[in-house]
Amino acid sequence: MVRENSKDESPESPLGIVEAKYFTFDSLALESKEILSPVALAYETYGTLSENKDNAILICHALSGDAHVAGISKESGQPGWWEFMIGPGRPFDTDKFFVISSNVVGGCKGSSGPGSLNPKTQKPYGMSFPVITVKDMIDAQRQLIDSLGIEKLFCVVGGSMGGMQVLQWAYSYPQKVVSAIPIATTLRHSPQQIAFNEVGRQAIILDPDWNGGDYYGKSFPANGLALARMVGHITYMSDDSMKEKFGRRLKGKEGYGCNLETGFEVGEYLKYRGESFVQRFDANSYIYITKAIDYFDLGDSKELVKRFSRQKTKFLVISYSHDWLYPTYQSKEVVRLLKYSRVEVTYCEISSTYGHDAFLIKNSEQEHLVTHFLNNTYKKLKGGKIKN
Amino acid sequence: MVRENSKDESPESPLGIVEAKYFTFDSLALESKEILSPVALAYETYGTLSENKDNAILICHALSGDAHVAGISKESGQPGWWEFMIGPGRPFDTDKFFVISSNVVGGCKGSSGPGSLNPKTQKPYGMSFPVITVKDMIDAQRQLIDSLGIEKLFCVVGGSMGGMQVLQWAYSYPQKVVSAIPIATTLRHSPQQIAFNEVGRQAIILDPDWNGGDYYGKSFPANGLALARMVGHITYMSDDSMKEKFGRRLKGKEGYGCNLETGFEVGEYLKYRGESFVQRFDANSYIYITKAIDYFDLGDSKELVKRFSRQKTKFLVISYSHDWLYPTYQSKEVVRLLKYSRVEVTYCEISSTYGHDAFLIKNSEQEHLVTHFLNNTYKKLKGGKIKN
Repeated sequence: MVRENSKDESPESPLGIVEAKYFTFDSLALESKEILSPVALAYETYGTLSENKDNAILICHALSGDAHVAGISKESGQPGWWEFMIGPGRPFDTDKFFVISSNVVGGCKGSSGPGSLNPKTQKPYGMSFPVITVKDMIDAQRQLIDSLGIEKLFCVVGGSMGGMQVLQWAYSYPQKVVSAIPIATTLRHSPQQIAFNEVGRQAIILDPDWNGGDYYGKSFPANGLALARMVGHITYMSDDSMKEKFGRRLKGKEGYGCNLETGFEVGEYLKYRGESFVQRFDANSYIYITKAIDYFDLGDSKELVKRFSRQKTKFLVISYSHDWLYPTYQSKEVVRLLKYSRVEVTYCEISSTYGHDAFLIKNSEQEHLVTHFLNNTYKKLKGGKIKN
Repeated sequence: MVRENSKDESPESPLGIVEAKYFTFDSLALESKEILSPVALAYETYGTLSENKDNAILICHALSGDAHVAGISKESGQPGWWEFMIGPGRPFDTDKFFVISSNVVGGCKGSSGPGSLNPKTQKPYGMSFPVITVKDMIDAQRQLIDSLGIEKLFCVVGGSMGGMQVLQWAYSYPQKVVSAIPIATTLRHSPQQIAFNEVGRQAIILDPDWNGGDYYGKSFPANGLALARMVGHITYMSDDSMKEKFGRRLKGKEGYGCNLETGFEVGEYLKYRGESFVQRFDANSYIYITKAIDYFDLGDSKELVKRFSRQKTKFLVISYSHDWLYPTYQSKEVVRLLKYSRVEVTYCEISSTYGHDAFLIKNSEQEHLVTHFLNNTYKKLKGGKIKN
């Protein structure tokens, strides 16, 4: 769900060059009862941790994101996927806050995933990698947070699958989360959302190059993964944003109706997005991470109200008007749950013709909302008005 | 978009056993300027043509439909895809009306299509079959209608791509269409609609068995076509109907999160639909027909108003509340165009949690609307109150 950055000649960032760090730890007990060992997490940090360690913000990424949220990557030379949100004077103000982001476990951007070496076989795990859940993702993050000596996160934030991690953090470790910003997300994946992921997984699995997941060092299942991304990308946009961006324009100058080579711009764009995705993502990670998303279900409403009751975490919930993949009704379910649980929550639906991707695109409303929420909440925390 | 019928032990129909007929004609001049020759159309008829031939109704099918609309097929033993709409006392009342349905040109259900023999090579056309448009489909139907000696159709009706044919009939041959019922359709395919079809076509094209369309007598690109159908089927349902039908249930009894074999029912259902579709549809026809749909664009609004101005055809436009593939706003565009053109039009959005598929599922509201519209219009026609 992360937008690929356009290749500027020399992108700039007030954060300058940033370098990925790696945190490794001995083992992670997974929800499946299996043990993943050892575990590596790729992460980045921006800003400075305060002396009393009360200013840490954890940013959780979406399906195809990574730890490179802001600054110019030393490795790729590219800006981060949420560059406009992080830095001095920006919503996640690095003059005030210490911002952390890590690649999820199961991923392919430096953290342990199906492409990692299985120590038992000295070959890549492939499909022998254990099933990962959103809870596993945040449990791995917790180990990282602990290693940094942070007892409480001032804020956990993320959109889409990142938002699921936010909700899971607040559910599993409420005492460790002062504030939370789930964006364009849900308490549980709906059958339609599962269905789109299922098609993506099938596209990969049916690619002969997938070979049961054992393709490392061999031919990569590029066609299947590209198809999966094409399906996904339709769901990240809206009918309106496609109309604005492509209309019914043809790629060339040919009249239509005359040959099958004559394509529409929207189709060419999707193919391009599919093909470029294949350059930067692992097919097995796509399977594992979409499974984690589909399995995500925080539980039955009644149980959730009990669980969240009188929780001290302050929430800012954001949804987008034209997001039909994670529609506003799902964010409203989060808000309703929190209200029933008497938890402090601010909610805003931001109007935008972009679809689900809207939270990844610079927009002043999201910037203002986040800035004010963080500043007010931090002021209260410093003034001793929050007892979490 | 046609629902596969459940295999009853012995399905029954008041129309009894029906047999497909074949109409062949010498040549069809296509929109692409190519000539298709010879041309075969598979068709079925129900009821009796009146002496003055004023009671003919043409039913146009959707993407994956065929000429077998009603009755029990002599060949397959299955009821038609719109069985509940056609027969004595049913909305398309065969005691009154003569109902005709033909498989579209480009299709694979008895009409000339990419799987037909190219007379020049004595091999199947494959991708050498000329590009087909919705206009070509109705021009072929016109030849059939002419051959039956029918000068005017009392009604042309269809949903989805069938609705496009209805609109095209009214646009191209207004003097031949007394009344028209476009259902769940659009004046032009939107980029999002094109995008979903593009993914389906890519799934087929990327299947190694597709082999540039030259697979007849060889290995069929079943995986690609099944994937295309899976994507399509998501768009024919709604989030709500998926919730009602599957929820988040797993196919087996296993807890989830533990292995990749554990699937959700919704995913299994889509796989089943994909696999069963492959048994009854040709991959190249899927490419050609989706292209025809994507190319469908009746034209710019101003030009359309001129064209439809003071047209005598009476319209009943129907859309469905939970159809997000052909959303109500597209049917409202049809209605607006007709109103601006001072054409008589009745419009109804039918409330249903089914998505796009709703028009294929028995519902009394659609039955009532169609029944009353046809009876009133036919009464006016017989009373000499309609001068088309």
